[in-house]
Amino acid sequence: MTNKERGILIVLSGPSGVGKGTVCKALRRYAPDLVYSVSATTRAPREGEQEGVNYFFRSRDQFQRLIQQNEMLEWAEYVGNFYGTPRKFVEDTLNAGKDVILEIEVQGAMKVKQTFPEAVFIFLLPPSMDELKSRIVGRGTDSQEAIRSRMTVAADEISLIEYYDYAIVNDRVELACSRIQSIIVAEHCRKERVVSKIKHWMAEVK
Amino acid sequence: MTNKERGILIVLSGPSGVGKGTVCKALRRYAPDLVYSVSATTRAPREGEQEGVNYFFRSRDQFQRLIQQNEMLEWAEYVGNFYGTPRKFVEDTLNAGKDVILEIEVQGAMKVKQTFPEAVFIFLLPPSMDELKSRIVGRGTDSQEAIRSRMTVAADEISLIEYYDYAIVNDRVELACSRIQSIIVAEHCRKERVVSKIKHWMAEVK
Repeated sequence: MTNKERGILIVLSGPSGVGKGTVCKALRRYAPDLVYSVSATTRAPREGEQEGVNYFFRSRDQFQRLIQQNEMLEWAEYVGNFYGTPRKFVEDTLNAGKDVILEIEVQGAMKVKQTFPEAVFIFLLPPSMDELKSRIVGRGTDSQEAIRSRMTVAADEISLIEYYDYAIVNDRVELACSRIQSIIVAEHCRKERVVSKIKHWMAEVK
Repeated sequence: MTNKERGILIVLSGPSGVGKGTVCKALRRYAPDLVYSVSATTRAPREGEQEGVNYFFRSRDQFQRLIQQNEMLEWAEYVGNFYGTPRKFVEDTLNAGKDVILEIEVQGAMKVKQTFPEAVFIFLLPPSMDELKSRIVGRGTDSQEAIRSRMTVAADEISLIEYYDYAIVNDRVELACSRIQSIIVAEHCRKERVVSKIKHWMAEVK
């Protein structure tokens, strides 16, 4: 009954400290069919890292060419290396009918919004600002000054929630995962998607 | 952490014969928290029918006053009696934080779209037009001519799918139910809803 349906790109973002990584890790267990976007980087592979699994390892020249050819959904420079999301891996996976999830910082997500507007944007929120602060403090790696500065950045990031489609309060990881899964199911039920899947018999209707 | 969140009105519709009633009946088992909209009617109560449970029983005068006061989300006359969806029951239930489901014919849903545009509209589709035909034929109550006419009506109704938010192919009742439940969860995660729930601490953020 179906034409092969294209997958959906899910962008999961939120302020640093909110628990994006933990939620994504749990999702791997709960939603094994979701494909995780693989980043490209110019840094050298570490022991055991595999090309196309952990990263796509590229030279600076290759990376810059990908940027120029609009082949990066987003990218940034971090401690002297480039990191980014190659469009080709995402497109190929979606065309194979699989959903892709991209876990990414808020700034990166804003770039994906421009380069891939048809993605579904989910913002992960802390239960409260106090809770976010204790999560950041709890990591134990930051000075008082650094914590204050991270909280200011988090507040700025949260104000960008208006550009997102969905928001999930990360109070319980399992609940956040099941909400993400519901969002994916619901997005597949959007009228436009279903109608394009059934056009072969909708055509008979009129 | 929450302001009390308002419920969502879910309008489930689709051509006659598609299985709306069967899906709704199954939903009562799978989603016991959903509240089913209670219709108003001018017909006399039958043995065992209870006011406010099976129907709101109203006189013709009362019913017409409700129409004039815009207190009916939709209504129609059928075999000399009025039937309709009273706004008050829906509003009161939503304000109590509960989701309401309204199972209704396509024409009625189009009226609800005008009187209650913030509802979420789900269109139930048959797996194919052939399958719809065999479901109608299977009921065994219609002449050849009546079947042809019902298929024409169904085709017209299906063309109204463009006014809906979601579409679900009713190939398996359990799957249709779980998709409806996912849609409800996802709608509660829409950014606008979540932001309005957390505005008390979003205000601190800036």
